[in-house]
Amino acid sequence: MRSRFFVLPSFALLLSFALPVIASAQPATQPAPASAQLHLMPLPRSVQMGQGSLDLSRNFRAELPATHDARLQASYDRFLARLDRQCGNIRRMQHETAPTAPALLTIQVAGPGEAIQSVNEDESYKLTVTSQSATLTAATDVGAMRGFETLLQLADMQNGACHLPAVTIDDAPRFPWRGLLLDVVRHFEPVEEVERTLDGMEVAKLNVFHWHLSDDQGFRAESKKFPRLTSEASNGQFYTQDQLREVVAYARARGIRVIPEFDMPGHSTSEVVAYPEIGSGEDVKGLQLTYSMPHAELDPSNEKTYKFIDAFIGEMGEIFPDAYYHIGGDETEGKAWLANPKIKAFMDKKGFKTTAELQTYFNQRLLPILEKHHKKMIGWDEVLTPGLPKNVMIQSWRGLESLSAAAVQGYTGILSTPYYLDHQKTSEQMFLDDVIPANTTLTPDQQKLILGGELCMWHEQIDTETNDSRIWPRSLAVAERFWSPQSDRDVADMYRRLRITSLELEDVGLRHIIGPKVLRRNLAGSLDPEALDTFASVLEPVSFGDREDTQHTDSFTSLDRLVDAVVADPPARQQIARDIDAVVSSGPDSAPAREAAAMRLRHRFESWAAAAPEVDTLTIRSARMNDAGPRARQLGQLARAGLEALAWIDSGVTPPSAWHTEQSAVLTDAAKPVALVRFVFLPDMQRLVDFAAGVPSATPAAPPAQ
Amino acid sequence: MRSRFFVLPSFALLLSFALPVIASAQPATQPAPASAQLHLMPLPRSVQMGQGSLDLSRNFRAELPATHDARLQASYDRFLARLDRQCGNIRRMQHETAPTAPALLTIQVAGPGEAIQSVNEDESYKLTVTSQSATLTAATDVGAMRGFETLLQLADMQNGACHLPAVTIDDAPRFPWRGLLLDVVRHFEPVEEVERTLDGMEVAKLNVFHWHLSDDQGFRAESKKFPRLTSEASNGQFYTQDQLREVVAYARARGIRVIPEFDMPGHSTSEVVAYPEIGSGEDVKGLQLTYSMPHAELDPSNEKTYKFIDAFIGEMGEIFPDAYYHIGGDETEGKAWLANPKIKAFMDKKGFKTTAELQTYFNQRLLPILEKHHKKMIGWDEVLTPGLPKNVMIQSWRGLESLSAAAVQGYTGILSTPYYLDHQKTSEQMFLDDVIPANTTLTPDQQKLILGGELCMWHEQIDTETNDSRIWPRSLAVAERFWSPQSDRDVADMYRRLRITSLELEDVGLRHIIGPKVLRRNLAGSLDPEALDTFASVLEPVSFGDREDTQHTDSFTSLDRLVDAVVADPPARQQIARDIDAVVSSGPDSAPAREAAAMRLRHRFESWAAAAPEVDTLTIRSARMNDAGPRARQLGQLARAGLEALAWIDSGVTPPSAWHTEQSAVLTDAAKPVALVRFVFLPDMQRLVDFAAGVPSATPAAPPAQ
Repeated sequence: MRSRFFVLPSFALLLSFALPVIASAQPATQPAPASAQLHLMPLPRSVQMGQGSLDLSRNFRAELPATHDARLQASYDRFLARLDRQCGNIRRMQHETAPTAPALLTIQVAGPGEAIQSVNEDESYKLTVTSQSATLTAATDVGAMRGFETLLQLADMQNGACHLPAVTIDDAPRFPWRGLLLDVVRHFEPVEEVERTLDGMEVAKLNVFHWHLSDDQGFRAESKKFPRLTSEASNGQFYTQDQLREVVAYARARGIRVIPEFDMPGHSTSEVVAYPEIGSGEDVKGLQLTYSMPHAELDPSNEKTYKFIDAFIGEMGEIFPDAYYHIGGDETEGKAWLANPKIKAFMDKKGFKTTAELQTYFNQRLLPILEKHHKKMIGWDEVLTPGLPKNVMIQSWRGLESLSAAAVQGYTGILSTPYYLDHQKTSEQMFLDDVIPANTTLTPDQQKLILGGELCMWHEQIDTETNDSRIWPRSLAVAERFWSPQSDRDVADMYRRLRITSLELEDVGLRHIIGPKVLRRNLAGSLDPEALDTFASVLEPVSFGDREDTQHTDSFTSLDRLVDAVVADPPARQQIARDIDAVVSSGPDSAPAREAAAMRLRHRFESWAAAAPEVDTLTIRSARMNDAGPRARQLGQLARAGLEALAWIDSGVTPPSAWHTEQSAVLTDAAKPVALVRFVFLPDMQRLVDFAAGVPSATPAAPPAQ
Repeated sequence: MRSRFFVLPSFALLLSFALPVIASAQPATQPAPASAQLHLMPLPRSVQMGQGSLDLSRNFRAELPATHDARLQASYDRFLARLDRQCGNIRRMQHETAPTAPALLTIQVAGPGEAIQSVNEDESYKLTVTSQSATLTAATDVGAMRGFETLLQLADMQNGACHLPAVTIDDAPRFPWRGLLLDVVRHFEPVEEVERTLDGMEVAKLNVFHWHLSDDQGFRAESKKFPRLTSEASNGQFYTQDQLREVVAYARARGIRVIPEFDMPGHSTSEVVAYPEIGSGEDVKGLQLTYSMPHAELDPSNEKTYKFIDAFIGEMGEIFPDAYYHIGGDETEGKAWLANPKIKAFMDKKGFKTTAELQTYFNQRLLPILEKHHKKMIGWDEVLTPGLPKNVMIQSWRGLESLSAAAVQGYTGILSTPYYLDHQKTSEQMFLDDVIPANTTLTPDQQKLILGGELCMWHEQIDTETNDSRIWPRSLAVAERFWSPQSDRDVADMYRRLRITSLELEDVGLRHIIGPKVLRRNLAGSLDPEALDTFASVLEPVSFGDREDTQHTDSFTSLDRLVDAVVADPPARQQIARDIDAVVSSGPDSAPAREAAAMRLRHRFESWAAAAPEVDTLTIRSARMNDAGPRARQLGQLARAGLEALAWIDSGVTPPSAWHTEQSAVLTDAAKPVALVRFVFLPDMQRLVDFAAGVPSATPAAPPAQ
């Protein structure tokens, strides 16, 4: 499923800008005052604003149903702690307000929900707030949890007191499968990092944690039946069974299912290192240190392989209660099979002409084993070969077309292609890429087979230090795509809410804002990191594939360089685009806005001019920064280009054409690959330079934003 | 040991300024060039600079002794990972350089050291670096670990390559007991926070983790023999025995001993809640929610009490292998004893006239139990009553005098009084307060009884969010006091090294820099937090006692307000003091420095003037900030006072005397208690105002600083 060869067609980016901005999915019976503008994310299915607001600062008391289970109690306790943090004094009032006083907030939950959460769990909830009281109603604990998140996003300070706006919300997810894949093989993530990720998922109302636990670089789950899997093939980095269970319980407490993935028959070097007898006879010296295509594969012709799988799934099936079990199944080339005379003979005997047929045979052998252990099979696109039973679910890394084809054939599926976080796309791009686009050709029944989607966070170039800043806040935009109505496509409003929800993520403990900041402080050493912050604010990392092609990343690659200390889709991208839009706009009404934008741009370019030489000094001093020297010097050149463009515009004089040629050359130079980072503003800067020179610009304008 | 009633005599502060600055303890055979100025912290016993430096960027290979244990291997692996981070490429070179190539860094360790680390463990090491190679020599694993920390502080980037300066270091600690007490009762700290604290201790070369595990507010250690201790008296917040063992192992891996403290016979509400039968018959409804003096005490007249203690110490003694066991013993008022006729009758029978005599009896009963379990007793000052056997060690919260008196009587002891972190003193104050001052009247033999000292981090007003920023970086200054020679008293140089070592702490994972920043971002909500950062940069929290007196903190007190988001001894304190020093200095040579300082001050005051109204807005909006309104307005007034003072000085004109009166009133007003935070620059600002007005200043100058 590693799709570094997948190339986003460049017109898709342009298309996303050209799409008409459809009205927000948030209907309001009356326009709310700007100060009370809601920042709910993901957007609920239906929001009706009422009159006034509920003051939470006096005699606050919340009430759970008389009968409720421990999971709801724990969730409610966490909710109250967070509300206390937002509003102040909540826990003390809850403790001191007489239990006979009417509750300001009543929580009504019909029952706990499914004992083992399934794809059918009822996650809906209703929320009614008047100026007198608030009621949260849900059929299940999980619905109540989703409602708690919405309540926390509604609560806001006004004049020193915390209020909930009067509102009626009726909410339920569009898709029942809203997942995030975390690869803990290429770089291991300790339990607390996994749990932190689950905390973020809860805020985002994501509900499936897809745990990629084995691959060519290691085996990360302890097996008591096959202890060599971790003693020989984990480098000591694995989860004990207690830890696996702890994570499953942690997830369940947040209404999140856990789907384990153990890759078969390819991506299996770790299994073959531990148990060569089930491999295909390849000469495997140890775990892979690189991330190239693997050559170790389980032997489908060997009965021992199926015995191993049977016993292993039996063991893991107890730890992971979910009905689904992910067998991987991707990128099996079968080289080792063809090289092994015994396997070749087996293929001949069975009449298999291709390794794909042997893989189909393998999957068909797997299915009854999974059924015996009451598990449903999920696999990546490659498992979908002729003859695959219809009860296998397809996870698509190949794209919407592949997924739609599967649905047409009657397979259930989920989409991952557009949601690969290491492609370093913007929130906007991922948000607009729909699981079932409005123009789908699938019938309603076929559409029902598409259960949702999953974000993917592969870890070849990610470790604990960068995990949070690669996942968040962009995943919020995708989580909204999975939860909210299809009509929700207002990019500007999405970004407005994303910025605020990102702070909420920080408050539940995610390090996506501080992580890159701390790394930059570390990169700067004893020097002042401010110049580096300025530099980093207008850079983004190249995609996984570009980095891989340039750097040939492997286990020894340090993930603590400039590329790791910058984030995809930094806020400066939109700010610069908007300011340049304002400057180049021609309407007579926009003069004050144009002036303000020009001033902001001037300050920004001046800060670049000041930072560039300081960063350049750092790149000379530090071995960890010295590939970035050219980028630092480009920042200085771009600052000058910007300042000169503003000066020409201000003067009302058209510069000599040589000026435009020179600045365009600077921009072209700055677009070339250096240090695995890209400037995020080059097309906008080109527009500014074109405008200053009176040259018609070929660069499209930025989308409307707030 | 809660010493909120201990008042730092105000002359001690003045004294610290008046002390002659003794030459740095860092001798150098030749002055090192400024670029190669070392930043070792704590200062080694002896440092001899050599010629040149060792380039680590080519053919790096380090070598451990052929025979070594797993602990040294793990420590070495962590060392290499950190060196890789600092220098880049180290792990790859270590992997790729031929093992036959000469090692650039040779580690020689004679043996693993003590199986159970004691106060006698050899922590010394020698380090020899030439331009050809480096050798670290130690008698034990622990000595090697101390050397690794020094090596990491020596490594520095020069022209894109990592170097170790040529140097010979011969190092060993001044005191064998260099501890940090962590209270996990008043607010619980999860295991990862405890381990993070141990990571910081390793950098600081501290070697005793004093774990305060029980008190009136809860019992935090699981007992299998007495399960009610945690089922009834922990609110679910406790460490399992596995977790206790994990922390002990984590500490041992870093050369740190773990001393558990279970308070007896006072501070025992949690034991009495769980097992009323060993209490003194008090009417205890539950764990204490407040932090007032406790009333529950174990019953010394009851044989069941000693049976409980015997069994409990037997159980904990297995988990905590250290030779010492802390019984607390402080602040036992004996009210419950006097109120209980049975206990009163026991006292009469024994002829005890005071509850102190009963406590002595209790301690005398305790000693053979501890000896049976091969443990030495430690207690706070109060255990030192007539008749106490000499093999009990005294931890002093009452002060140097109390500790010296104990030493004169032949008791071993450690000092904690000056090192209470919640007194919010400056690094400078704590650094200059010595365990054995140069003017001690103790004989050399009596001095040997004083084994060292312990920092104390009590948790009434601290939780996980603020723990790191309350402990670090100030504890580095105290760790240096415990490790480095008595003559090391150069405050300016200490601060220079503290700033750099503080970044090293951040890099091992401590959140002391980001914690307050994140909390301020949370306090600002969706508003820009920059103004709040400016405000916070010149504020410090009031002491524990002042906060307690004002706020009467209890279990419901939120620890997420402005006072929690500012730190003791912020860097701005010294920066402002130095700049004002420069401005008011009269030497003709200092004119350029004076001008530069005046410019920095002007910029600073302007940033205050800009921030004040923004913060004021926030204090009106947010219930969590609204006590800080007056402070925000004072910031604006102080900004004006500063700007006007600079303007008068610049003009060369003496302002009317009313101006001086008015500004002095502003300063007096700003010194009054508001919002649990204090401005850190008021005496300096008064000097500036006095200077501008031509009034002789009564305010002492700041100490020399760099």
